[in-house]
Order: sequence, then structure tokens, then C-alpha cells
Amino acid sequence: MAHEISALVFDAYGTLFDVHSVSRLAESLFPGKGAALSVAWRSKQLEYTWLRSLMGRYEDFSRVTQSALEWALESLGLEADDGARRSLLDEYRRLATFPEVPEALRALAEARPLAILSNGHPEMLNAVVEHNGLRPLFRGGVLSVHAAKVFKPDASVYRLVEDHLGVPRTMMGFVSSNGWDAAGAKSFGFRAFWVNRAGAPVERLGVRPDATVKDLAGIVDLVA
Amino acid sequence: MAHEISALVFDAYGTLFDVHSVSRLAESLFPGKGAALSVAWRSKQLEYTWLRSLMGRYEDFSRVTQSALEWALESLGLEADDGARRSLLDEYRRLATFPEVPEALRALAEARPLAILSNGHPEMLNAVVEHNGLRPLFRGGVLSVHAAKVFKPDASVYRLVEDHLGVPRTMMGFVSSNGWDAAGAKSFGFRAFWVNRAGAPVERLGVRPDATVKDLAGIVDLVA
Repeated sequence: MAHEISALVFDAYGTLFDVHSVSRLAESLFPGKGAALSVAWRSKQLEYTWLRSLMGRYEDFSRVTQSALEWALESLGLEADDGARRSLLDEYRRLATFPEVPEALRALAEARPLAILSNGHPEMLNAVVEHNGLRPLFRGGVLSVHAAKVFKPDASVYRLVEDHLGVPRTMMGFVSSNGWDAAGAKSFGFRAFWVNRAGAPVERLGVRPDATVKDLAGIVDLVA
Repeated sequence: MAHEISALVFDAYGTLFDVHSVSRLAESLFPGKGAALSVAWRSKQLEYTWLRSLMGRYEDFSRVTQSALEWALESLGLEADDGARRSLLDEYRRLATFPEVPEALRALAEARPLAILSNGHPEMLNAVVEHNGLRPLFRGGVLSVHAAKVFKPDASVYRLVEDHLGVPRTMMGFVSSNGWDAAGAKSFGFRAFWVNRAGAPVERLGVRPDATVKDLAGIVDLVA
């Protein structure tokens, strides 16, 4: 398959960067409630990206993330001062990669340009990429939906990276741990590779990923 | 406020009709797992309506509901034969109203036309309205997003009812138990009344409902 893939594009949160450290911080701030807060926060964050996109009321991902945190705290009856909120939000700027990620990216970057396409606000996204020293590996660019003023899986988001790289969509490999994001990319016309770390059921959205792997090492095997 | 509201439009599932009976059936089919199945199913159902709308891959609500059920069953490791699946899906056609609904609708219908605007496929929606004998109360019509081929909260959905009733959006009262649906209606320009039965936090989507009530009797008081 290698010769068919001219560029590889990665989702960021959950695909390259492990959001689990957010749960740990939440647990230290709210003992016994960390996991519940983390789950409610993340699911409301995604929900707001979809709803705002449909309503035509785009707001950048930092603000959506903050709004989702406020909702999640209230839903669980938790009180958080400004310092605690700030710590939770700042955690997104220093997420660690999953263990296999740096080596896999280095191997993949030898053969073709790599890029990131994320819902994240550019500033927030650049911070976590720099924090992990990954910038030199992404010579295809670190792209944010912010340029399209709408979130994934709107087609205009995937078009951003197609336009930026100038690679035909059928030769673009798109890698995401979010099944719905892989479906959005596939629906747009990319080759979609789903990183199914959790062994989740495939999303029933009318399109299937071209391949499913357990982690980023699986992508190296796939396109080698 | 009464003289400012020329027509009232209602969401269906969760607002007029209680989806709790789906949980009861799920529990009888999968003892100990009914609530989990019901929650996973409902949340995936909504997720798919948003994702498919953003992807431009509309599929009618009956099929989305079926896809979401398949995902939810697999995620919980449950096996269901065709008969069980059919029973669960058919439950949507015979949901009961919340207790206060018929009397509240009768009171409200005296002063102005009432309508329904729902994600439901027309056939599925008509079945539950007929089952409850509510048809004569909705002289404004029973409208489905199916005519727009996109789901709530896309603006074109709310436009359907505005066009159908010929009432200016600022004089249209929109009633929903889904905070995000109330937000979508408000964002479009309707007067939005949120039926917050569960005491949930208000959605942080950049718009607020004009009023929040506990049930449909609250709407009667509001527009009396």
C-alpha cells in the first residue's frame, strides 16, 4: 500500500496525545470524581463541536473546551476555583504522546510528509506539539480547523489539508483514533486508518475505514 | 407573553413522549443491562444525527436509530436476535406521553396552533402521535426533518416550520426538553422554552433559552 500513500495526516488528541493525564489531574483535584469529570468533560466537548458546527456558531476549541468543563463541573455538582479550572485547561498544552508515537512518527516521516489536522486552536495545538519536540517531524504542517471556522467532520475541514498539501485525496492517508473522524475523512475521500486502541465497535456511519490498527506501530506496518 | 406567541412548536421524543419505556423493555430483554443499553443507544443515536448532518450523509431517523442500536449492543457485548431488535425499535412507535402532556396540550391548543418538529421519520412520528390520539391537537402540523434531509440543530430544520406555518420566527414559541435543541431554535430566532425535567445544567452554546420550565404545565403558565 505504501506507494499509494503520498502523505499521512494525523488527528492529535487521543491519536498522538494521551488525554489520560487530564483524568489524573481531575482525580487529584476531586478525589473519587476524576474519571466521571473527565468523561463528562470530553463527551460534552465533542458534542459542542458538533452542535456549534451545525448551528453555524463556531467558537474556537479553547473556548469550547472551557464551556464543556463548566457544564461538566455543574452536572457533577463540583465547585472549582479559577486556579483549578486553569490547571485543567492548561493540561491540554502538555499532554504526553502515547509511548509508541515518537518512534512510529520518525519511521513514517522518512518516506513521506506528515501533517496534523486537529480541532484544536492553533495556539493550543502548537504548544503541545512543541512540548513534545515533534515539530520537525511534521513537515506537512500542523493544521487547525480554525482556518475553516467549523469542526470535524465537516468536509471543509478535510479540504484544508488537501489544499495545503496539494495531494489528491485518494493518495492521502488519514489516521485517527476517533472512529467518527476516520469516517468523516473516508467520506471526504481520504484513505482512512482507524487507531482503535480501546477495541471499540466500528461506527455505523455508512462508510468504513480502509484499515483498523491497534496503535501507531500498526500504521508503520501498514504503509511500509 | 401570550399575545407575542402566535404558534407553539414542540419537539417529540423526551418532550412529549417518554422514552423510558424503552429502558424497561431493554431491561426485560437484558436483565441488569437495560439502563446501560438504553443510555448508550440514545446517546449514539443523537451523535449519529449530528455526525451524519455534518458529513452530508443524511439517513432517515429509523435507520440511524437502528445503526445506533447495533453499535450499543456490540459495545456492551449483548447478542440480540431479529425479534429482540424489532421489539426495541418498535417501542418508539408506542411511547406514552408524560402524564401532564395531554391536558397541557389541550389548554395550549385553544389559543394558538400547535405543531411538532421532530428528527423522527414521518412514518415513525405519525405512528406515535396516532397511538396517543394527539393528532387533532396539532392543527399546525406534524413536521419531520426528513423534508430537509438534515437533522437538528441545522438552521434549515427550524426554517421548515417557519415556512410551513407562515409565522415570523420571533413570534414562534419552540418547546424542547433537549437543551441543545432549544439552543438551536433560539439561535435560529425562535422564542425558546426549555423543559428541564431532569434539572440539567444549561447548555453553554452561546445562546440561552427565553424561559426554563419543569414540565409542559409550566408552558401553560408561561403563555397564559
